[in-house]
Amino acid sequence: MLKIPPHQVAGHQAGNGKLGPLVDESGRFYKPLQGDERGSNEVKFYESFSSNTKIPEHISKFFPIFYGTQLIEASDGSGLKSHLVLHDLVVGRVNPSIVDIKIGSRTWAPQSTEEYMQKCLKKDRETSSLPLGFRLSGIQIYGNKESGYWKPERTSIQNLSAEEVKLILKKFVSSNASTDSDSEPDCAFAATVYGGSTGILSQLLELKAWFEDQTMYHFYSCSILMMFEKELALEGQNPGAQIKLIDFAHVIEGRGVIDHNFLGGLCSLIKFLSEILTAPNEHTTEVSSKPDHQNFICSDNGVN
Amino acid sequence: MLKIPPHQVAGHQAGNGKLGPLVDESGRFYKPLQGDERGSNEVKFYESFSSNTKIPEHISKFFPIFYGTQLIEASDGSGLKSHLVLHDLVVGRVNPSIVDIKIGSRTWAPQSTEEYMQKCLKKDRETSSLPLGFRLSGIQIYGNKESGYWKPERTSIQNLSAEEVKLILKKFVSSNASTDSDSEPDCAFAATVYGGSTGILSQLLELKAWFEDQTMYHFYSCSILMMFEKELALEGQNPGAQIKLIDFAHVIEGRGVIDHNFLGGLCSLIKFLSEILTAPNEHTTEVSSKPDHQNFICSDNGVN
Repeated sequence: MLKIPPHQVAGHQAGNGKLGPLVDESGRFYKPLQGDERGSNEVKFYESFSSNTKIPEHISKFFPIFYGTQLIEASDGSGLKSHLVLHDLVVGRVNPSIVDIKIGSRTWAPQSTEEYMQKCLKKDRETSSLPLGFRLSGIQIYGNKESGYWKPERTSIQNLSAEEVKLILKKFVSSNASTDSDSEPDCAFAATVYGGSTGILSQLLELKAWFEDQTMYHFYSCSILMMFEKELALEGQNPGAQIKLIDFAHVIEGRGVIDHNFLGGLCSLIKFLSEILTAPNEHTTEVSSKPDHQNFICSDNGVN
Repeated sequence: MLKIPPHQVAGHQAGNGKLGPLVDESGRFYKPLQGDERGSNEVKFYESFSSNTKIPEHISKFFPIFYGTQLIEASDGSGLKSHLVLHDLVVGRVNPSIVDIKIGSRTWAPQSTEEYMQKCLKKDRETSSLPLGFRLSGIQIYGNKESGYWKPERTSIQNLSAEEVKLILKKFVSSNASTDSDSEPDCAFAATVYGGSTGILSQLLELKAWFEDQTMYHFYSCSILMMFEKELALEGQNPGAQIKLIDFAHVIEGRGVIDHNFLGGLCSLIKFLSEILTAPNEHTTEVSSKPDHQNFICSDNGVN
């Protein structure tokens, strides 16, 4: 019995007669193949990656397991359609908090068409991607049984400033975030979710080391999911903090060069989380009024 | 007595009635201030950076020492003009080999005007910047007393492929590069110039660690100079391998975010040098015919 994934935070979503991914009870995630090059490109990537013996296990664990493609009834009622069959990343989780972060200040490959490049560039400039090196693409933060999830509109979180993104990434690991949005986030779970030897920061650093070296793939417009279970954290159990990479429709060959675009964005995200871990109680408003070095105020107004 | 710098490999050059930098015998370098925002922006950067107590010494040593500005006779005969006064980076060197590498896949800041952005973007796409994360801006490689320097046209080295850039970076540290351009570079000085605890790779890694952390400045269109003395290397002496950052007309405030654009390009350059150190005799032509993972051949033709 296929159903709509309960915890999807970004991307095309099924429901109301729309085409989107489905999940089954055995823990598989069915992603409809986009009919154009995106679909075939994502299949090619999964086929290449899953059979690539050069990918170490401590890296492949960050990617969804690939079970091939399969014809199933599409969610929009249009009949049989080819779907990617992947491991359902949230299977077994009860009330996961999840954030989807699109990595890279540039979401288009060098060989893109002019039209596609200009379209992506416009979006990258209008969102956090260009200044921060990544943008928030979707988020759900679990509050409690009464409040349920805080799940802001996706468009409202894509173009945040550095300080606003930091605030959201603090809320993500706070016990008081969803119920009272005005209070300063307490970052109660920062140490166990972001920190520690198995926390999210450690995982991102493993990924970073691989990106400093690998020249096989360039991941344009790809996202990192970060997730954990707040209720487990509250009970003092391991909160199951985990990162996963998703969305490979725009992966291209690396051709002997590292993915400097993804790596730069990843390092920027790592810096945000490091700062939250180092100074969880630093007040956001104080920070934004103090530039790092006040003597230096200049603008680049475009003369060359 | 001011004269034209003998070892400048990129940027505006004095001579033939043109405006360009000058040097004196005491080891100072005079860079004419561009009359527009670029000039004032570069002065502002040097004033900020040189008085910034947060810059550790092991980082500030990579930047030219700043002695203020001074009115001197311009090289184009136009009379007194304001110049940046800097330490001459090649003073004391006899026959330095030098390469100027503009770092970053993007040479324009997010807040640039549309016109300036499109102009830079065009150049970034036409050169190595977009695919590699950096581009060669100028180079001189010393051969010997008879052959002198190999100093290719600057425009001929800006748009090289990954393999071609690697070949040049091998030639840069080879004893047979300048005299016979067809022979495979021997990378005779790779271990002493790129490698070792005081070599160029070590210096780049120090710089990288700082860029992973600092959120004060973003360095658009800035270059790393790498230099050494081949004759010292041949004599078994310390070749004086050194990196320096130059050109700060497009530096902007970091505003709490790391310079992910510079960092990505820097990591890409580091990977090139690491590969040369690890496999100096790997033949370039062999490499280019073997993609990393042959099953994966796809293109991103612009559909989204």
